[in-house]
Amino acid sequence: MSGDGDFGLLSPVSASPAVVALTGDRAVIAAILDVETAWASVLEEAGFAPAGSAAVVTEAAESWAYDAASIAERAQGGANPVIPLLADLRGRVRQLDAGHPGGSIGALAAVHTSLTSQDVLDSALMLLAHRVVSALLAEVQGTTTALAALAAQHADTLCVGRSLTQHALPFTFGLRAAQWFHGVAAAARRLESLELPVQFGGAGGTLAAGTLLTEGSSSSPFALADALAGKLGLAPAPAPWHTNRLAVTGLGDAVASLTDSFGKIASDLLFLSRPEVAELGEPLAAGRGVSSAMPQKQNPVLSVLIRSAALQAPGLAAQLHLAAANFNDERPDGAWHSEWQALRGLLRLALGAATHLRELAEGLRIFPEAMRRNLDISGPLLLSEAVASSVAPLLGADRSDAKARLQAVVDETLQAPVVEQARIYTKLLREAVPASKLSDEELKALLDPANYVGEAAEIGRRILAAYPEFTHTNPKGADRG
Amino acid sequence: MSGDGDFGLLSPVSASPAVVALTGDRAVIAAILDVETAWASVLEEAGFAPAGSAAVVTEAAESWAYDAASIAERAQGGANPVIPLLADLRGRVRQLDAGHPGGSIGALAAVHTSLTSQDVLDSALMLLAHRVVSALLAEVQGTTTALAALAAQHADTLCVGRSLTQHALPFTFGLRAAQWFHGVAAAARRLESLELPVQFGGAGGTLAAGTLLTEGSSSSPFALADALAGKLGLAPAPAPWHTNRLAVTGLGDAVASLTDSFGKIASDLLFLSRPEVAELGEPLAAGRGVSSAMPQKQNPVLSVLIRSAALQAPGLAAQLHLAAANFNDERPDGAWHSEWQALRGLLRLALGAATHLRELAEGLRIFPEAMRRNLDISGPLLLSEAVASSVAPLLGADRSDAKARLQAVVDETLQAPVVEQARIYTKLLREAVPASKLSDEELKALLDPANYVGEAAEIGRRILAAYPEFTHTNPKGADRG
Amino acid sequence: MSGDGDFGLLSPVSASPAVVALTGDRAVIAAILDVETAWASVLEEAGFAPAGSAAVVTEAAESWAYDAASIAERAQGGANPVIPLLADLRGRVRQLDAGHPGGSIGALAAVHTSLTSQDVLDSALMLLAHRVVSALLAEVQGTTTALAALAAQHADTLCVGRSLTQHALPFTFGLRAAQWFHGVAAAARRLESLELPVQFGGAGGTLAAGTLLTEGSSSSPFALADALAGKLGLAPAPAPWHTNRLAVTGLGDAVASLTDSFGKIASDLLFLSRPEVAELGEPLAAGRGVSSAMPQKQNPVLSVLIRSAALQAPGLAAQLHLAAANFNDERPDGAWHSEWQALRGLLRLALGAATHLRELAEGLRIFPEAMRRNLDISGPLLLSEAVASSVAPLLGADRSDAKARLQAVVDETLQAPVVEQARIYTKLLREAVPASKLSDEELKALLDPANYVGEAAEIGRRILAAYPEFTHTNPKGADRG
Amino acid sequence: MSGDGDFGLLSPVSASPAVVALTGDRAVIAAILDVETAWASVLEEAGFAPAGSAAVVTEAAESWAYDAASIAERAQGGANPVIPLLADLRGRVRQLDAGHPGGSIGALAAVHTSLTSQDVLDSALMLLAHRVVSALLAEVQGTTTALAALAAQHADTLCVGRSLTQHALPFTFGLRAAQWFHGVAAAARRLESLELPVQFGGAGGTLAAGTLLTEGSSSSPFALADALAGKLGLAPAPAPWHTNRLAVTGLGDAVASLTDSFGKIASDLLFLSRPEVAELGEPLAAGRGVSSAMPQKQNPVLSVLIRSAALQAPGLAAQLHLAAANFNDERPDGAWHSEWQALRGLLRLALGAATHLRELAEGLRIFPEAMRRNLDISGPLLLSEAVASSVAPLLGADRSDAKARLQAVVDETLQAPVVEQARIYTKLLREAVPASKLSDEELKALLDPANYVGEAAEIGRRILAAYPEFTHTNPKGADRG
Repeated sequence: MSGDGDFGLLSPVSASPAVVALTGDRAVIAAILDVETAWASVLEEAGFAPAGSAAVVTEAAESWAYDAASIAERAQGGANPVIPLLADLRGRVRQLDAGHPGGSIGALAAVHTSLTSQDVLDSALMLLAHRVVSALLAEVQGTTTALAALAAQHADTLCVGRSLTQHALPFTFGLRAAQWFHGVAAAARRLESLELPVQFGGAGGTLAAGTLLTEGSSSSPFALADALAGKLGLAPAPAPWHTNRLAVTGLGDAVASLTDSFGKIASDLLFLSRPEVAELGEPLAAGRGVSSAMPQKQNPVLSVLIRSAALQAPGLAAQLHLAAANFNDERPDGAWHSEWQALRGLLRLALGAATHLRELAEGLRIFPEAMRRNLDISGPLLLSEAVASSVAPLLGADRSDAKARLQAVVDETLQAPVVEQARIYTKLLREAVPASKLSDEELKALLDPANYVGEAAEIGRRILAAYPEFTHTNPKGADRG
Repeated sequence: MSGDGDFGLLSPVSASPAVVALTGDRAVIAAILDVETAWASVLEEAGFAPAGSAAVVTEAAESWAYDAASIAERAQGGANPVIPLLADLRGRVRQLDAGHPGGSIGALAAVHTSLTSQDVLDSALMLLAHRVVSALLAEVQGTTTALAALAAQHADTLCVGRSLTQHALPFTFGLRAAQWFHGVAAAARRLESLELPVQFGGAGGTLAAGTLLTEGSSSSPFALADALAGKLGLAPAPAPWHTNRLAVTGLGDAVASLTDSFGKIASDLLFLSRPEVAELGEPLAAGRGVSSAMPQKQNPVLSVLIRSAALQAPGLAAQLHLAAANFNDERPDGAWHSEWQALRGLLRLALGAATHLRELAEGLRIFPEAMRRNLDISGPLLLSEAVASSVAPLLGADRSDAKARLQAVVDETLQAPVVEQARIYTKLLREAVPASKLSDEELKALLDPANYVGEAAEIGRRILAAYPEFTHTNPKGADRG
Repeated sequence: MSGDGDFGLLSPVSASPAVVALTGDRAVIAAILDVETAWASVLEEAGFAPAGSAAVVTEAAESWAYDAASIAERAQGGANPVIPLLADLRGRVRQLDAGHPGGSIGALAAVHTSLTSQDVLDSALMLLAHRVVSALLAEVQGTTTALAALAAQHADTLCVGRSLTQHALPFTFGLRAAQWFHGVAAAARRLESLELPVQFGGAGGTLAAGTLLTEGSSSSPFALADALAGKLGLAPAPAPWHTNRLAVTGLGDAVASLTDSFGKIASDLLFLSRPEVAELGEPLAAGRGVSSAMPQKQNPVLSVLIRSAALQAPGLAAQLHLAAANFNDERPDGAWHSEWQALRGLLRLALGAATHLRELAEGLRIFPEAMRRNLDISGPLLLSEAVASSVAPLLGADRSDAKARLQAVVDETLQAPVVEQARIYTKLLREAVPASKLSDEELKALLDPANYVGEAAEIGRRILAAYPEFTHTNPKGADRG
Repeated sequence: MSGDGDFGLLSPVSASPAVVALTGDRAVIAAILDVETAWASVLEEAGFAPAGSAAVVTEAAESWAYDAASIAERAQGGANPVIPLLADLRGRVRQLDAGHPGGSIGALAAVHTSLTSQDVLDSALMLLAHRVVSALLAEVQGTTTALAALAAQHADTLCVGRSLTQHALPFTFGLRAAQWFHGVAAAARRLESLELPVQFGGAGGTLAAGTLLTEGSSSSPFALADALAGKLGLAPAPAPWHTNRLAVTGLGDAVASLTDSFGKIASDLLFLSRPEVAELGEPLAAGRGVSSAMPQKQNPVLSVLIRSAALQAPGLAAQLHLAAANFNDERPDGAWHSEWQALRGLLRLALGAATHLRELAEGLRIFPEAMRRNLDISGPLLLSEAVASSVAPLLGADRSDAKARLQAVVDETLQAPVVEQARIYTKLLREAVPASKLSDEELKALLDPANYVGEAAEIGRRILAAYPEFTHTNPKGADRG
């Protein structure tokens, strides 16, 4: 049974155990401990902590179930969770060290020496982000691969293109899938290219304690920082970035850009899977889409969840910028503290949404007949632009008179009820142009939407070609990022 | 030991057990179950559920530890947590009902009949909000009472008023405390006046199932809704509000207005307790204000936590408006789902911050000497406006010449280093006005900042008088709201 | 021809001359001048300015075209526009005063005496808001009146209710209109009830200069403030509110709540006027809905514009809260300055959107046949809940067996393509229940959606009854607020 | 005299004529016309418009003062400003073409052929952004150059480092300037690296009209798009991006990141130039920092303006993400329309703030004595960490006893008033350590903050070295970006 904490009850999009495991308070604690144990190794390897001390610290980190609720509560004392967790870790190290076979080795010297809370928490959140982003990109890879396949497969599947809710021009479902792919792949590439840096500046950002520590040795605080980055798989930082938060805002922006691309797809799907439209359907799965009151309903729950995440991400990304813009002094008086929950929230929403989008993309149900039926609502009228170009020259020398006559055809058509317009437009057009100039067959071809999709297929191909790394499931997907 | 959930580790401002108890996932589950059990009573009392069934439902709700993690995970199926919780509740009722002494009484008929998920979740979140707001107002009452006492006590304690960071005019600490009180009391009064309505509309908002249920009886769906409101302590609603979210946004706005008023105070305190200023100090308490690296530091942690909350609240309130503006159809496709976490987040931040602010207000350390020392940095120069009014007439008939001479005194003073200006201004002024027109004593009185605080005391009195209900600790504080 | 400024080119929703006239820079200048001239009258009437001086100030304000571009540029010097405008006004007063028949009367003494920039700008923005809100509420009145008429007229017009994009239950267009009315009326009532207070605190918020001015007279700074409020039609304030911004955030919240209600309607309309749905149509008007490339298109431009405003308002309202939460000192160092544009932006978007919504509501085209056609897509399946209640008892004593059989009917139906389901469900149901227990006629009645709209009509009536002041066009609409 | 529009009156940070010239409605009109005239050239050069037509279009664009107010108003008809501007342009082209010496050449064929409004507006806003970013980066270059000089010059200027408002460790003003530089340079490099792409997709994003146009020729729509990009100085796009808004959000994020870095500096300056602190001062300039009521005040107006911009940018960047996440269909129903004002607003705030920051950085007044005076408030206590490391070994073999004695010294010191602590700490320390182990001279050196600034100088050097392109004023600054 679960305890008193939060498990995503009010954020179903991110309530899966996989998301909780990567982003919950215990994942944060694990990341903090990983930073402290990596640092212990760095210190020991550089000769600034006794031989064997890193092993003791690692054992202390791993052999104990740190109590998230207690640490959270005690975090109020110093306004961050590193302080109480460190107290617990030190207590545990002291205990293990005291019980060391052969007597204490002074392992405490390997804990947190020369670090400050911000070094640890900034590095830990970057580490946590690194892990979430890896998982996220693996999900995205599944999505983009599925969308690329749809783009290729449906390159010639006709549908209608819509703008400002109205029918605009003939379109293809392949191009729609390609553009969805485009959005996701471009945002994912940006996210993948981000450097997530280690933080090491010491209490004031001068590396004073680290300088004292390394004085007279062949090492330096900069070398220690690089070693720490290496152990954690983070990027080295040329200098402390404790007051310049581009690493944080850049991460938030990239994650929000990804959920933007998810949101665009969800918006489209939520419309296209409505009963009146029925061009697409979410994959059917037991337990998905249920209603508490209406047993006949099949809700597009995946899209709903994704959209709920996409609506929330922009505000969270803005929270990070707001913090950055208020980062006063060498460590700020509240702005830093307002970053953490927003950053985690973003990662959590994105990972949850990515999982749902992959399920959706991989199992999307596609109904080409409905696409065609909807296209035919406006049908030939969508081609009036093309008609004007091709037919006007047939109507005589006076080009502007010809255009006026064709516009009159359009105008008269628009008087009729929508469902009648396709038929009426064809009829009026037939009457306007002598068959001698335009045979029935030629007219039919002219009004065939399949003949007016422009470069739809080529655009799709170009998009896929621009993001080759996203067009197939990466078997080592989980190792990316 | 705590499990895998979140306990506020990354949001220290709200990480106290009291906040978790009122806002955690288990509190949400409890509120949902309270709505369902209250509804069972309503149904039984109106004759639409078998006698005894409400007791069975209540027992089922109370005798079981519903698993938040499991419910959260299953909430993904229908995009809300009511559905899986209801499944568990029904299972439990079925079990108890089957084991009923004397055989099943058909208690299942009392569970959720005629309701839809949104009825339950909207009502449950209003109920949860009601509980949090009560606790919040009790904390606020402590704060305002403490601030009112400071306002009265320090009505004559001189300090400097600042605008755009610079010294503006003489001020009093009493008026500062009164204005802090003003901000909190006005926002709290607004919050207290809010009506938190019950929701009952059924699956589509037509009360169709409720109509079917009550057909032929003397009751009506409207009567059932009012009865439910009564049992839950919520306001009755004249009509379903499933698509009009003013109740939600209004709550969010009022809560954010309260944290705004907290944030204003925290901003001031964070400046006024700096070592260079030292006019105020946070209460000292063991474990408060500690640093992981610098043992000599005493950080104003309460203010930092409060400020971190105040920086986050506006974005969360905006999230609620954004949801409201996107509430399409009879139940929307993601907007509703984006409300829940934001609303809880707001309540949580506000309650946490309110607790810290109360501790701060009740234990604030006040240093009038430092206030005076800082005031004296600018000293008489702050009175140049008053000097101009009083002294110009003494300098001869030509008023504009007199003013120019006084401005020259100011200008010359401003050439000097800041710390010299008070002395120089006084000296130059003495030279400019003959002692026959203005004795040394009169000049001293003219330059005494205590003589130029205007209506500071009266403004403070008016403010306190305008909010009498907030000037003393309400012994029944916990019952308010 | 227009100059170099902005006229709403990138914000078409608010680009009408009427909006520009009420919210443009010149309207701000006019409001500032109105505050200064009202203050001159207050001073003169209380005997603190020479007889005739208010008339001079008024003439100076009205007889001159103050140059917005120049004032805006010079506003950078002191970070607010009052200072340069005041310089211009004083210059003009000096000029007029000098040319006064009979010689200077010292009219300059009536300009800005005892005020500070914030007094003037806060009061001026409240005055501008007051004017915009009046115009806004007049537009809203037109909208609500039109929606109330639709609600009454279409109380029995059947359509389908949708949740999470899918068909949920039978609904009526009358109830939809009533709920739209509900949202707008509730938000408008809140806006109408707001008090927009005058500001008067002087440079530091102590009324020091005002105290000096009124010393020895029978007046007081508080009396002057009340007199100013009276002249401007603003609410009196018990105390200066220069650092407590609830008046500003409350206004922003109320305005955003109104645009939320607009956004909900626009979202619905944008879906309901799609060609595939076609239940509603925007009013046709020359020049409305045109496209630069597709002559056949008729875009729902009013809804698009309204939605664009509703998407922007939440962020602007949050900006005001953010400012309030950062209002440090007696006048803050940037937060105040971040309020102005956001507040005007909100007012502007709301007024523009209100105008468009009124046009939309008053000219909405309604297509009941399409509503029925869409309802019939899901048709009888929407009644499965009602069917279960009514039919199960006819299927024999074993209630759970009966329910299982009916669920099987639903499940089998759902296997069929959407467009077949209505027919199949009816057929299967006919087969499941002997005609002896349920005649064909009774079955038909049972499956008639018109018989399952619950309290739709009564809910509509209750909503209209709850907001009687919004159900008819107020002939004095423009005088409200 | 200026007309009825907005000139930045309520946004002083961006009210300068230079900003208005680059971002005002007329700048938008100019950018739209630039796109249309460039397109005319592309068409003519590719043989799709008559020889000479581009010249006619260019003349039509340049010889006429398009009326921003009128276009803005008419933009309501189709919800975008391209349509009415195009109507005016076509009218003008028709007129010029008719008057062409030798008769009409059919120049109208060169206007907008195959384009859609979104192609033009997206491209025009990218073009406008390109221009603003160039100006912005030129200002930034001035700022970073000035900050780099301060960093080098003050590498050894001691001050105090602060965290959570309290004194933390000795610091240098050079490192502070270097970190300010760091923030600005990193954000500017990101902005500079952005690609601002041309848009060309046609009405539905299929390039259908362009395909029809180029059919049978050696050209293609893709070639035309690349030619347009070349003429405008924009980046080519591999495919239309009409529904994937990463180009827009990425621009917004980069601009907001830059204002974040400005905001951090402004926050620091606003504190450091307070009278109680007085470490820095804004440059003095006539008319800067004036107050309407207090003639003695010198407000840090540049910082206030910059901060006001930094507080507003995050919300505007979020608006762009929100739009992107709602970009439904092939052109959305309001989301696109909500982008424009936010994007321009961001550019405007950033450019205005950049100008002020440059003035500030280039003229910053620096007071090393005040820095030292403030450092000395906490003085030797800041070194307690270093003291513990160095002195403990001198106190005997029992290390933990030694540490406890040193901690007792700190604790006793903290009992004293802040202003006494430095003296008391030194005295107690002297008593605790025998002079035989630590001479007076050695103790003095140990307590000298200049000896505990760690790698401050080296960090500064590394930062400057990491951004060489930002360390000197680029003589071709205006050509960048």
